[in-house]
Amino acid sequence: MENFQNIRIAVDAIVFGYKNNSLYVLLIEQKFGSADKYWALPGGLVKQDESLSEAVIRELHEETSVQLTFMEQLYTFGDDIHRDSRNRVISVAYYALVDASGLEIKADTDAERVQWFKIDEIPDLAFDHNIIVKTAITRLKAKLTYEPVGFDLLPQEFLFSDLENLYCTILEKEIDRRNFRKKILSYGFLDQTDHFSPVKSGRPAKLFKFNDLKYKELIEKGFHFEIKFA
Amino acid sequence: MENFQNIRIAVDAIVFGYKNNSLYVLLIEQKFGSADKYWALPGGLVKQDESLSEAVIRELHEETSVQLTFMEQLYTFGDDIHRDSRNRVISVAYYALVDASGLEIKADTDAERVQWFKIDEIPDLAFDHNIIVKTAITRLKAKLTYEPVGFDLLPQEFLFSDLENLYCTILEKEIDRRNFRKKILSYGFLDQTDHFSPVKSGRPAKLFKFNDLKYKELIEKGFHFEIKFA
Repeated sequence: MENFQNIRIAVDAIVFGYKNNSLYVLLIEQKFGSADKYWALPGGLVKQDESLSEAVIRELHEETSVQLTFMEQLYTFGDDIHRDSRNRVISVAYYALVDASGLEIKADTDAERVQWFKIDEIPDLAFDHNIIVKTAITRLKAKLTYEPVGFDLLPQEFLFSDLENLYCTILEKEIDRRNFRKKILSYGFLDQTDHFSPVKSGRPAKLFKFNDLKYKELIEKGFHFEIKFA
Repeated sequence: MENFQNIRIAVDAIVFGYKNNSLYVLLIEQKFGSADKYWALPGGLVKQDESLSEAVIRELHEETSVQLTFMEQLYTFGDDIHRDSRNRVISVAYYALVDASGLEIKADTDAERVQWFKIDEIPDLAFDHNIIVKTAITRLKAKLTYEPVGFDLLPQEFLFSDLENLYCTILEKEIDRRNFRKKILSYGFLDQTDHFSPVKSGRPAKLFKFNDLKYKELIEKGFHFEIKFA
């Protein structure tokens, strides 16, 4: 391995959260480093003996207290060789979707502050993190249309209207609510619970639950999830 | 940047080629390194001053003489920290689709031999390259159903039956040929040329051409390409 390389490997975490009909991303104010006046994505250098996926989960936990078991790889940012002024750094970015209403966040050892930012109110971030967030949003929008990942952003039990609002909000499109409901329910992976929404104007509405097992059964039979807009 | 890291960054190139109704991947027999008895994907270490995408295009060219202008990032392989026995190496894998019938390949400075392998006849490869190839095949199959990338695998002008065969071969599914033809032609991004297939049993058939400009126009209007199977 005679090739001279002085390139560091980092990981960055894009955690999308959803609450009050808005999509958020989790950012930290950095404590160390040259970009310490900026908000940034949680992340940091990979340790010698950990895998990339272990590294991103550890960094996220160290900086925000959020403990995830899985994040999906988004993209590796390494074309701008000056993206970090201190040293060449390649960043492998991962993303996850969470129900932000049920998640405790707390700036931990490595971060000054941690905060949810609405995706249309994201400030100028450190490094190329605005580009990374933009890439993640594009991926999320595409993914929502062909995998039922929207459920990861909702509480375990939710109103059907919450699901509709989620799609409209994130995809920035109006949906035909009657057809949407009919189609989604026809798939058979949404269970009606016996619970009703606690507070709501008008008559209480039933809460639904995503049935992951049922969805996996359908997938094995060749089912393809798909959200279409007119 | 006090964190101690001794991790090298490599790139690997998965070049899919299509000819004689079969899908192939381009492999090299390595000249250097511990895995020199094995076939492997073209690739190597990133140079200090080149971007990741420059690195993969350079390595591919150095080892196979194939000169591409663009490759798409597939995935970064870095979870197995022992994937290279010499040193920890993280590989950013890229893929491309080419018309193998019109491409000259030649083992260059850094490779012993270079050869197309049918995807169902791929030998035991060096490192984790079998896993990388498998990941790329999965991505290609998915992509074929929602982007018209199949045309990249065909010559500029092709018979409609070539396109049908390509989809059947790669997706390993039978298609309803009449509906397929009707649907694809209805999109409007296939131009009929004035040329006929040179040799073919039965009466000569018209050659078609993919109209990239027209396709981009459609995309801007919100068009979604989609191949569906019953």
